[in-house]
Amino acid sequence: LQQISNIAIVGSGNAAYHFAAAFQQLHDVTVTVYARSEEKRIALANATNATTGLLHNLSSAQHDAVLLAVTDQSIQTVSELAPKNTLVLHCSGATALSVIKQEHAGVLYPLQTMTKSKAVDFSAVPILIESNSEQHKPRLEHLAKRISEKVLWMTSEKRLKVHLAAVFACNFSNFMMASAQRFLAKEQIPFELLHTLIAETSTKAMAIGPEAAQTGPALRGDKNVLSLHETMLEEDPELLHIYQIISNLIQSQHGIV
Amino acid sequence: LQQISNIAIVGSGNAAYHFAAAFQQLHDVTVTVYARSEEKRIALANATNATTGLLHNLSSAQHDAVLLAVTDQSIQTVSELAPKNTLVLHCSGATALSVIKQEHAGVLYPLQTMTKSKAVDFSAVPILIESNSEQHKPRLEHLAKRISEKVLWMTSEKRLKVHLAAVFACNFSNFMMASAQRFLAKEQIPFELLHTLIAETSTKAMAIGPEAAQTGPALRGDKNVLSLHETMLEEDPELLHIYQIISNLIQSQHGIV
Repeated sequence: LQQISNIAIVGSGNAAYHFAAAFQQLHDVTVTVYARSEEKRIALANATNATTGLLHNLSSAQHDAVLLAVTDQSIQTVSELAPKNTLVLHCSGATALSVIKQEHAGVLYPLQTMTKSKAVDFSAVPILIESNSEQHKPRLEHLAKRISEKVLWMTSEKRLKVHLAAVFACNFSNFMMASAQRFLAKEQIPFELLHTLIAETSTKAMAIGPEAAQTGPALRGDKNVLSLHETMLEEDPELLHIYQIISNLIQSQHGIV
Repeated sequence: LQQISNIAIVGSGNAAYHFAAAFQQLHDVTVTVYARSEEKRIALANATNATTGLLHNLSSAQHDAVLLAVTDQSIQTVSELAPKNTLVLHCSGATALSVIKQEHAGVLYPLQTMTKSKAVDFSAVPILIESNSEQHKPRLEHLAKRISEKVLWMTSEKRLKVHLAAVFACNFSNFMMASAQRFLAKEQIPFELLHTLIAETSTKAMAIGPEAAQTGPALRGDKNVLSLHETMLEEDPELLHIYQIISNLIQSQHGIV
């Protein structure tokens, strides 16, 4: 197996940043970062010690693989800039493999939330992979397994479902924590007071499953507390609306009326 | 200081269970469990090695403190069963201290989510305390500090705000994880696939704050992915409704239109 040792990453966002950092840790892999914004491209290259290239040179550059870490809408257009006969990968949960029109296409989707200011330990991150190229499948799997201990082959259709579930489990649960943060800030109470609770919430959801882990006034059918909370939220109609909708759903799903 | 070494706990729910277990770990403290349901009272006493008493005997029993771990609505009624001149405590976030009509009243509120099947490490749990009794304040603080390293004096008014924030950060974020679990179950995809993501979501929210930690298609303003997800949720109107509301709120709060 001829391993992938020369990777182009196109993009300058969170995924580009964290993939560049992860591949750079493999000392026999070279990473070249391409991006439209010169400023972001150079910042990313500096932060990860990657080399950098100009996007209009990509089509004639020599790389074992080109990883498109761009917005979902740009994947198809940008994929056409990649050299022919090169393995072209995207890293999106919500985009089908077939969006890449090159002959050798693949997906390397890390099931993780990434923000530049927070380091990612890729070794524990499930990486969902897919490819249309029998020739490149073993190379893609090998590359993924060099950065993660949890590599799974998965179809585009199934990956999209996992991605949607991830939006609820991560983006939406984070939004609820952000709502708590916003409420406490108005009351000048430090958010850190909730840290132990937040840590236990995810630990318990993993230990016994979130459905069994559900607690709170809605689940207890505690009408007094529910209406007290609603009164407290009267000055914030958005939070009040969320409060009522989610409380009602918790009650209807657990058969509490 | 004469420490509290003989505690009555009234109730048989999650809080009663975990407080009984925590106090039983202090080998110089005796715990007696009182509850209406004989079955639950005995089950709780057996699980925690506490002794047990009949509720109608509580008023004449000798205890240093009586902890009411009952529903918020029952606190006032049950407090009247406690012996006069005894320190009577409740452990509710959402109920004012003044609901207890005894002369010596207090609050011992653990800011944590508790389910019987999951052990609680009290040492890291913030315990918010309050009392109307100058005589008993040092004893209450001493008791709380024996089980937790994070004991804070807090008024009823402020505690209620913390409790409401906790509903968002814990109960509602857990509900979002449960929604992901429900969706994946229908698709026969194991929920465990999301474990690393769930752990990182809370870790990142604590490290950089949930507002800065927000990611996802709504934040990116990715209309294609949003409408794709909505199509996938057409058969589950409840999840679709949550998806749209939360996505819209993420966008409006982050100034994305």
